Amino acid sequence: MNIIQKEIIIEQKQRGFHIVTEEILRQIPEIKDITKGTAHIFIQHTSASLTINENADPEVRSDFEKHFNKLAPEIAPYYDHNSEGSDDMPAHLKSSILGSSVIVPVTRGEFNLGTWQGIYLCEHRNHGGRRRLIVTITGE
Amino acid sequence: MNIIQKEIIIEQKQRGFHIVTEEILRQIPEIKDITKGTAHIFIQHTSASLTINENADPEVRSDFEKHFNKLAPEIAPYYDHNSEGSDDMPAHLKSSILGSSVIVPVTRGEFNLGTWQGIYLCEHRNHGGRRRLIVTITGE
Amino acid sequence: MNIIQKEIIIEQKQRGFHIVTEEILRQIPEIKDITKGTAHIFIQHTSASLTINENADPEVRSDFEKHFNKLAPEIAPYYDHNSEGSDDMPAHLKSSILGSSVIVPVTRGEFNLGTWQGIYLCEHRNHGGRRRLIVTITGE
Repeated sequence: MNIIQKEIIIEQKQRGFHIVTEEILRQIPEIKDITKGTAHIFIQHTSASLTINENADPEVRSDFEKHFNKLAPEIAPYYDHNSEGSDDMPAHLKSSILGSSVIVPVTRGEFNLGTWQGIYLCEHRNHGGRRRLIVTITGE
Repeated sequence: MNIIQKEIIIEQKQRGFHIVTEEILRQIPEIKDITKGTAHIFIQHTSASLTINENADPEVRSDFEKHFNKLAPEIAPYYDHNSEGSDDMPAHLKSSILGSSVIVPVTRGEFNLGTWQGIYLCEHRNHGGRRRLIVTITGE
Repeated sequence: MNIIQKEIIIEQKQRGFHIVTEEILRQIPEIKDITKGTAHIFIQHTSASLTINENADPEVRSDFEKHFNKLAPEIAPYYDHNSEGSDDMPAHLKSSILGSSVIVPVTRGEFNLGTWQGIYLCEHRNHGGRRRLIVTITGE
């Protein structure tokens, strides 16, 4: 059994949903040595999140952005936490609905995703900046 | 430390929420050898998902189906991704709200779930077919 | 590689969202021996949940309570599962939207959370009682 842990950076993205599978993989070449295991990918922020969804039609991602703006709207009359901008409280809500980590099986040195699956970085702020991830791969 | 990884199949289910704890366990008898650890159960699809919830009253599962159809309705006026049917875009949204994996503690050869907990397969398509899961058990 | 598994208790909380990072850490001093790994924190209940979000302004947590009461309201006309009180079915829904576990990277004997991140216990019942968690730390 082996464990690899690494801090990696995802470059700044526009508000919305972005496929980052390759941007992550480029930064963890050590995955090649893992025959079977899991990769835990964790975002160290509370206004951006990670999820797994369709890696093909870009309209899926833009529909995600529109739908999550309905699920957690800006300027709801009952928000008290407004000091960091109208995009801040919805960003916190979206982060918890989607989650701060994904875990992907690793098989023969690669993410063992389904044919249509990709890892999304979900940027919920208008100006979110670079995002820091901690990747922990456990396996043999 | 030991790691067991296995691809298993969940037989086709109707659209809705289904308890699959036993259907999973039947396919991973190796769990008996793990004294303490975790089981990562991952679905390789983007229009079905996994969650943990009440394993008793079937009305909980039918209420889930009704409520998630409100949270991610069919034929929202702002969906652009319509080509695969009106149940497709809501299926993607529900998958990310609920998640593509659950992780369950394993103790003395069994899932260490609470008394009222079961693993749900959440089938979001009208005709979803069989679903492929990757189970990775890490422990000793 | 080492694995530590422990059942811990979170004392009864009011309905709402509560930071429990320290209450968890106090009960797992063994984490000090883990240089790199992950901690899986699992709640054995279906009407309370765990998430990671902002650890500073308490208004974020009260806004969460208000917003989740909109996402899964009490006494929706289509709920059939009513026998355990009007807060019960929404509690099940919120639990699955937020999730029954969080996984946190562990680095040099500590949770490797971002500066603004804390672990929330999300108590969805009016009188939820003490909550049982299973913590599994895998690492070296």
